[in-house]
Amino acid sequence: MPHIPVASHLPGITGLLEYRKDTAEPIRALTQLILRGPGTLTFAEREMIATVVSQANECRFCSAAHAAVTDVLLGESETCNLVRDDVESAPISEKMKSLLQIAKQTQRGGQFVTESAVTRAKNAGVTDLEIHDTVLIAALFCLYNKYVDGLATALPEDPAYFKQLGERIAVSYGRRPEGYDKPLMVERFENVEG
Amino acid sequence: MPHIPVASHLPGITGLLEYRKDTAEPIRALTQLILRGPGTLTFAEREMIATVVSQANECRFCSAAHAAVTDVLLGESETCNLVRDDVESAPISEKMKSLLQIAKQTQRGGQFVTESAVTRAKNAGVTDLEIHDTVLIAALFCLYNKYVDGLATALPEDPAYFKQLGERIAVSYGRRPEGYDKPLMVERFENVEG
Repeated sequence: MPHIPVASHLPGITGLLEYRKDTAEPIRALTQLILRGPGTLTFAEREMIATVVSQANECRFCSAAHAAVTDVLLGESETCNLVRDDVESAPISEKMKSLLQIAKQTQRGGQFVTESAVTRAKNAGVTDLEIHDTVLIAALFCLYNKYVDGLATALPEDPAYFKQLGERIAVSYGRRPEGYDKPLMVERFENVEG
Repeated sequence: MPHIPVASHLPGITGLLEYRKDTAEPIRALTQLILRGPGTLTFAEREMIATVVSQANECRFCSAAHAAVTDVLLGESETCNLVRDDVESAPISEKMKSLLQIAKQTQRGGQFVTESAVTRAKNAGVTDLEIHDTVLIAALFCLYNKYVDGLATALPEDPAYFKQLGERIAVSYGRRPEGYDKPLMVERFENVEG
């Protein structure tokens, strides 16, 4: 049961963004810029950072939601599952492994981001802006994870919720997921940006 | 040495807000709303939440900065020092103690916010919105702390920097601190909102 009276049909972040709409606006704006704005990291790479950080924070709503978005963007779920199990052995680029390690260090605490992790990223061709954005995405998802769980928001039991949420969010990337001509449970997905 | 090339005269968050100005805008907007917007928590109470969370994250820049703002708003530094030492024995209201405990639990992880901490707050007359805002302030400062330290930004050695930064930020609350007719080192304080 949530600690504050959020709308019962809006689980996770969705009810919080409705609860206080004025603060929701800059939270949405920041998310849109850093996850879905112009940049050299692919959208799937950014969603993967969000997923790995949310998982490290044990935020089930956010990790399920952003894994679902990653899956829609990649067109398969194997990669993100393997990344969630173990970054180093997952079938992703050295560049992406190095950024996910920086994201995980940031989640643990800013002081834990090591020079050697940054050097590894730079050796893999990562730009300064990509390092900046990785740290900011990780920091933003620490905000989301603590906001969502700190207020004890509801977690949908039905995996179909997250599948459809992933499809819904992926639409905001301008990519129409396969089978998107199926009707979505739109009324359940109002106010979703996070 | 910062992990990315931020302006050397802008330590802590100040250089980051300059480094990527588009993402700085919603970060500033959220901060202004939740710390300095209308609300039933006093500005000093909100700054104290920011301070306690930043200290728990061991972010020296943010904890020094927001302790300095709290001191300016309260007109003395004893209270905030005692809060930083031990919330329960500090000379603050039961309401404020209960909110600082929720903030500290949120910093540790959203799942750590207990029903009993929330019940204690409600028994002390805390409103749902105050619980919401406390969790969101704590979550926002986790973002700030991880952003600032994750990129290894510079920490000024001179305590006068934070005293003047506190005065500078306090001005944005519309309160003119004592002695504010002294010139500030304005060129060092550009782009400060966090």
